[in-house]
Amino acid sequence: MKIAIIGYGGVGRAFTLLLNDKKADLLKIGLDLQVNYIIGRVGGVYSKEGIQIEDLMEFTKNNKDFTDYPNGGSKSLNFDDIIKNKDIDLVVETTPTNLVDGEPANNPIHKSLEAGFHVVTGNKGPILFNYRKLKDLAIKNKVQLGIGCTTGGALPSINAGIFDLAGSRIEKIEGVLNGTTNFIIKTMESQQIEYKEALRMAQEQGIAESNPSLDVEGLDTATKILILTNVLLDKDYKLEDTTIEGITNLKVSDINKALDEGKKYKLIGRAIRKNDEMLISVQPEKVSAESPFYYIDGKNKGLSFTSDTLGDLFIMGGASGVIPAAASILRDIINIHKGNKVT
Amino acid sequence: MKIAIIGYGGVGRAFTLLLNDKKADLLKIGLDLQVNYIIGRVGGVYSKEGIQIEDLMEFTKNNKDFTDYPNGGSKSLNFDDIIKNKDIDLVVETTPTNLVDGEPANNPIHKSLEAGFHVVTGNKGPILFNYRKLKDLAIKNKVQLGIGCTTGGALPSINAGIFDLAGSRIEKIEGVLNGTTNFIIKTMESQQIEYKEALRMAQEQGIAESNPSLDVEGLDTATKILILTNVLLDKDYKLEDTTIEGITNLKVSDINKALDEGKKYKLIGRAIRKNDEMLISVQPEKVSAESPFYYIDGKNKGLSFTSDTLGDLFIMGGASGVIPAAASILRDIINIHKGNKVT
Repeated sequence: MKIAIIGYGGVGRAFTLLLNDKKADLLKIGLDLQVNYIIGRVGGVYSKEGIQIEDLMEFTKNNKDFTDYPNGGSKSLNFDDIIKNKDIDLVVETTPTNLVDGEPANNPIHKSLEAGFHVVTGNKGPILFNYRKLKDLAIKNKVQLGIGCTTGGALPSINAGIFDLAGSRIEKIEGVLNGTTNFIIKTMESQQIEYKEALRMAQEQGIAESNPSLDVEGLDTATKILILTNVLLDKDYKLEDTTIEGITNLKVSDINKALDEGKKYKLIGRAIRKNDEMLISVQPEKVSAESPFYYIDGKNKGLSFTSDTLGDLFIMGGASGVIPAAASILRDIINIHKGNKVT
Repeated sequence: MKIAIIGYGGVGRAFTLLLNDKKADLLKIGLDLQVNYIIGRVGGVYSKEGIQIEDLMEFTKNNKDFTDYPNGGSKSLNFDDIIKNKDIDLVVETTPTNLVDGEPANNPIHKSLEAGFHVVTGNKGPILFNYRKLKDLAIKNKVQLGIGCTTGGALPSINAGIFDLAGSRIEKIEGVLNGTTNFIIKTMESQQIEYKEALRMAQEQGIAESNPSLDVEGLDTATKILILTNVLLDKDYKLEDTTIEGITNLKVSDINKALDEGKKYKLIGRAIRKNDEMLISVQPEKVSAESPFYYIDGKNKGLSFTSDTLGDLFIMGGASGVIPAAASILRDIINIHKGNKVT
């Protein structure tokens, strides 16, 4: 299988390294992955016979620009060259998420599916805004759209709904899906400090971003619950259909009061059935020790499904970091290779 | 898709009813399931055009023998008729588990795969003894062997390993996989009674069987861990490769001592990597409140995987009863219908 990697940040790099590490294991299952393109913000690397990953890594080790790589590096290479050459099978899209309109990632995903390439992306933006359209395009072109790591990275949230609950009716989806807010709440509790101070600490440790609004205002959680609902229940809800409250108004006194009741605050995303509609909300809630969400610590995420015939299913996991993110992209690729329908 | 149901006990009946209830939903995903055969211990029902489930249910309502059903019931119908007629696509095998040699279920599963029928079974026996052989036969005949409900019913344990951990190396599998022993331990704790008394209560409530040895001596848990290990790691371990200790020697004083330490006893099945081998064991263990196993109550089962690149994954669920068991058979059928590789 020949692939192109769009976006060469932390996840893109971790993914190329992972392919290298897993080469022998992948060959055992009949999957010979060859990276033909790596496209960065400006320029990229192209090799018709497959880029030599180790050699490229060696070249870029001392902060050299990868577009200067002698075997195929180019400042002028761009995404349209892939569409023109049509010499790949699958596009891995790893550019940063934009929740305003899903661009710039939406355009290459759209064009890739149209060109008959499978697409695997961890980018929530295009899926939030255009899932239905992109999915229809994938079906029309007999390719797959893998979005397993848009809703919790390594946590197999989409998989659980697709493969594990097949044949049952999902009545409720609830999750703790954002690590940054979980960390901030935990810090407020353990250090007995207010939200702003805890946010600052999270930023210092590189856990919260310098503009933390997507996380702390609940938009990231809302996007994940929306994507899960739209994909798993064949709906078309938008951000404006949800009620969203983040953690910015949470006070240490609230957290301590909850602790006195044996409870902890968690930012819960929820989709719950009311007849044929799903009501979608995000808000900080007190959860008791009877709830599995109580035990989800900073590094993990957790999701619970309620179904009619298969009972409740709770999943927890999804280690953070670029390696698990890269590994969840690879997971989608392997499933696509096997012919498993990932969405 | 035309199917045959072998075994018409609680799960077989629940499954036919479920097909009836879900008919419209299944048609929406392009799956028109038609039951051509139901084979009981002696005789069965056959209809080339598909058995009218509701009509059959109506007929058997007043304890009438289903082999007397006027539209295709017969005392002489048996499994070999299916092989002779070759007019189905998939066999659902729901006969009781035998952990001595896997018979009598092994024979029809073997013949079905050989005849080019997919097989979905909840029967641990044949999978414990002959998985490798049956799987090879399935591959050779280009059909699938669905065993999703052999290792925890509705708990998507096989699925988690196949779809969710694709591309990662499983380092450890640990689980609380037997509801009966979990119930007995809980009863010993809450009622402060010894094992034999708690077992008797479980038997009175229909939770433990009259011959409870498979459950209480740890064989059921060992079988599930063995199947998971063999299927997910491509191994061929047998019961004699495992160390098994059940709960029969557990005392209330042990349980109380654990409680004093903030711990609970659980019967844990485990497979842990040592180089290229997996060490497999079953034993009652004290688990602390930091372990997700601590919170698995009687009705649930839970499983944790440790992997190299996708981190830890914990799943909990698997409601007991004939409906979830039937629904997990249907789940495998739907995945097979979609072309997903279930093992």
